[in-house]
Amino acid sequence: MSQLVPVIEKLQQILPGRLVLDPEVLETYARDETIDLCALPACVVRARSAQDVAAVLKICNEYGVAVTPRGAGTGVTGGAVAVAGGIVLSMEQMNRILEIDEHNLIAVVEPGAITADIQKAALRHRLLYPPDPASLDTCSIGGNVAENAGGPRAVKYGITGHYVTGLEFALADGSIITSGGKYVKNATGYNICGILTGSEGTLAVVTKIYLRLVPAPPNSIDVLMPFVDLGAAVAAVSALLHSGIVPATIEFMEQDAITFVAAHLGQDMPCADAGAHLLLQVEGASQQACHETLEAIAAACAIEEDSIFVAQTAAQQERLWKGRRSIREALRAESPIFLAEDCVVPRGEIAAFLAGLKEYLQTLALRSVMFGHAGDGNVHINVFKDSLPAEQWQAMLSDLKREIYRRAIEHGGTITGEHGIGCIRRDYLAMAKSPEEIALYRRIKQAFDPRGILNPGKIF
Amino acid sequence: MSQLVPVIEKLQQILPGRLVLDPEVLETYARDETIDLCALPACVVRARSAQDVAAVLKICNEYGVAVTPRGAGTGVTGGAVAVAGGIVLSMEQMNRILEIDEHNLIAVVEPGAITADIQKAALRHRLLYPPDPASLDTCSIGGNVAENAGGPRAVKYGITGHYVTGLEFALADGSIITSGGKYVKNATGYNICGILTGSEGTLAVVTKIYLRLVPAPPNSIDVLMPFVDLGAAVAAVSALLHSGIVPATIEFMEQDAITFVAAHLGQDMPCADAGAHLLLQVEGASQQACHETLEAIAAACAIEEDSIFVAQTAAQQERLWKGRRSIREALRAESPIFLAEDCVVPRGEIAAFLAGLKEYLQTLALRSVMFGHAGDGNVHINVFKDSLPAEQWQAMLSDLKREIYRRAIEHGGTITGEHGIGCIRRDYLAMAKSPEEIALYRRIKQAFDPRGILNPGKIF
Repeated sequence: MSQLVPVIEKLQQILPGRLVLDPEVLETYARDETIDLCALPACVVRARSAQDVAAVLKICNEYGVAVTPRGAGTGVTGGAVAVAGGIVLSMEQMNRILEIDEHNLIAVVEPGAITADIQKAALRHRLLYPPDPASLDTCSIGGNVAENAGGPRAVKYGITGHYVTGLEFALADGSIITSGGKYVKNATGYNICGILTGSEGTLAVVTKIYLRLVPAPPNSIDVLMPFVDLGAAVAAVSALLHSGIVPATIEFMEQDAITFVAAHLGQDMPCADAGAHLLLQVEGASQQACHETLEAIAAACAIEEDSIFVAQTAAQQERLWKGRRSIREALRAESPIFLAEDCVVPRGEIAAFLAGLKEYLQTLALRSVMFGHAGDGNVHINVFKDSLPAEQWQAMLSDLKREIYRRAIEHGGTITGEHGIGCIRRDYLAMAKSPEEIALYRRIKQAFDPRGILNPGKIF
Repeated sequence: MSQLVPVIEKLQQILPGRLVLDPEVLETYARDETIDLCALPACVVRARSAQDVAAVLKICNEYGVAVTPRGAGTGVTGGAVAVAGGIVLSMEQMNRILEIDEHNLIAVVEPGAITADIQKAALRHRLLYPPDPASLDTCSIGGNVAENAGGPRAVKYGITGHYVTGLEFALADGSIITSGGKYVKNATGYNICGILTGSEGTLAVVTKIYLRLVPAPPNSIDVLMPFVDLGAAVAAVSALLHSGIVPATIEFMEQDAITFVAAHLGQDMPCADAGAHLLLQVEGASQQACHETLEAIAAACAIEEDSIFVAQTAAQQERLWKGRRSIREALRAESPIFLAEDCVVPRGEIAAFLAGLKEYLQTLALRSVMFGHAGDGNVHINVFKDSLPAEQWQAMLSDLKREIYRRAIEHGGTITGEHGIGCIRRDYLAMAKSPEEIALYRRIKQAFDPRGILNPGKIF
């Protein structure tokens, strides 16, 4: 802490106008979307360029002061919260979409750019940036890279890491490196973009991102398919994939998720009386092609076509997706405190994993709601605190998490699919990773950030 | 070298029957497919298990003896050649396809398994392992992981790294780690699979691989489209991608490539009189859907449908792809020594890059043949030695490579898209990578392999 004073003084000299020291404003940097986590930073620097970032890192590295990089603060594992003190390095002002290169099918963006804005800019050129985390309207692409964010479209299109073709980044010592660029294949040296993507801000601070774009599908339709229960829905997904059809999304929702969302948004949701739902986006060269694929899907899943709700208009499509993306918010309205896990299991294991888990939670008299990405095994498990006294909830939380993770691992999966370890799962990493692998992480960390100033307290 | 004797003695005790010391047999491990490169190893160990691999590494690490991991020896940059001496660690006997897990859409394989065998095994379950390097009938999946191999289908499906969901590997110190598994999304710790894929055997030795499979497209057709010249072909690719259609492959070939292949295979190739060709694979739910897409492609590319050669039968399809995959062999038949580069440039830059390069090579009176992956900017540049005296060829080679790389980088690309750096491009890495990035590679290498025993002389 004593080192902070000279660091702040130096930063004020070098980067006038970029520092936030006003306690009221600092307060807005104390949290991300992680439930029940808060740490007030001593100082925030709002960088405007890679050079700003490098300057901050160089000084902090010299004095051994912790730096927590921060995008839009929409993460849910505390990645952007300065739990070890020190400085928050905000990328919010580096938010430009520098280029949509239609000729080369590449977007070049700053880390603070909002994911949905990049998608909209690409769409104006009939190009698609596929990754679509639920927070896409508010999250920043730098955070997506830091967490290797996924989203519903991952089943067909993959996750953030599959689209990063190049990164400009600053190391802890202030050196700026560009690895990769506007080319989509690369066997030149180590895959630095690969290791940085998903490293949760612990290895480097990304200052520019090159993203591969794909041709936008000319047409798509969104459909909601009702099922008796989750088991039936998951069986349908398996039949669907084995029929050779890959929709852009295969999301599942328990009935409660739909009910809560309908209440929260104050609007009816279709098929509200089904035990579980699948939300599919079907793409095609024409509307007719989409509908033909939908017929094939209904046949593969052995579901009556007229039980399927087809969103016919943009407004209906928006209502479906707004519903899906509002689940977290709706859950929060139902019970402000809840445990939110995003385990991943092999795709065929979802039903067995969740059925067992539901049963276990019922024995504890805990209400839970499950939804997520049926197409890729990534499930969102939400357990309500409800009216449990805070003390009792806190006391049981660690065992509860441990049991959820144990079951995911037992089913051949792991503890987080897209939200990351951050600080909230750090103590559980050893359940999923061997001591040898964690020791390797430490040596990799050392290779990038020998003084350990970058986002300390995260991952391990 | 003096350390080799005790190491070989120890290995003979611990791994009886696994060692090759017979000079005649050793000779078969002295080369891969790299032109004009040979280094006889002192000893080859044919591992049968991860434990064998770990034992070899542990002993070699203790004595500081170099280990060159080797798959099927089909690489083209010397990755499997023991240029720094020491031991070759052959994975050829660890070639089992352990499981095609239809339920979870995952293949579990040993590194010595042949890529085409994995594809065939998956297809029996109507599943597809997409990456398809030209050598797929003979190359091993471990080598594909080491080089992050691509292939024609990369334009739609991506490269090897996009399919690796888990790796079991041995570090230089003999510890065995499994990172990842049968799940397709993962935000648990650093992306170790990402950094190992494409690391050319310099960081660890992979002993088991988990691969994501996708539903096999129910139908596909292969077509050859003739164009006046390469410029016209590349313009068609751009128009095609912007129309929203992504074929599984978009390969281009210069006329000479087709001519040489026809001569080499002793069979006619279709559209032999065109200046350049595109070889497309179009996938669809039915044959009719494929043909409808083909109509849309013809319209987007403004090409007469009846000038397109459509492979109607499996034999015709095989003839087209056999032709494409035999180009390298055919070139070798034309001129046993030739320079083979696989630069990558932004997709829109291919035509300009190759036109300029062709012109430059003509001023040197050198014959060249270009082909490759028009859909992703990865071009295979082949320059014949022809009857040039060996000395003169050798003397000009370095400048020639430097000029090709310089031009690729000038066009916003890099020096290798899928073949890797190996030993043959090591001296040119600094053209593409900053000193800061190469220094970072060295620190990463140190984190995995502190004594530097793994595949020395490769990459940097």
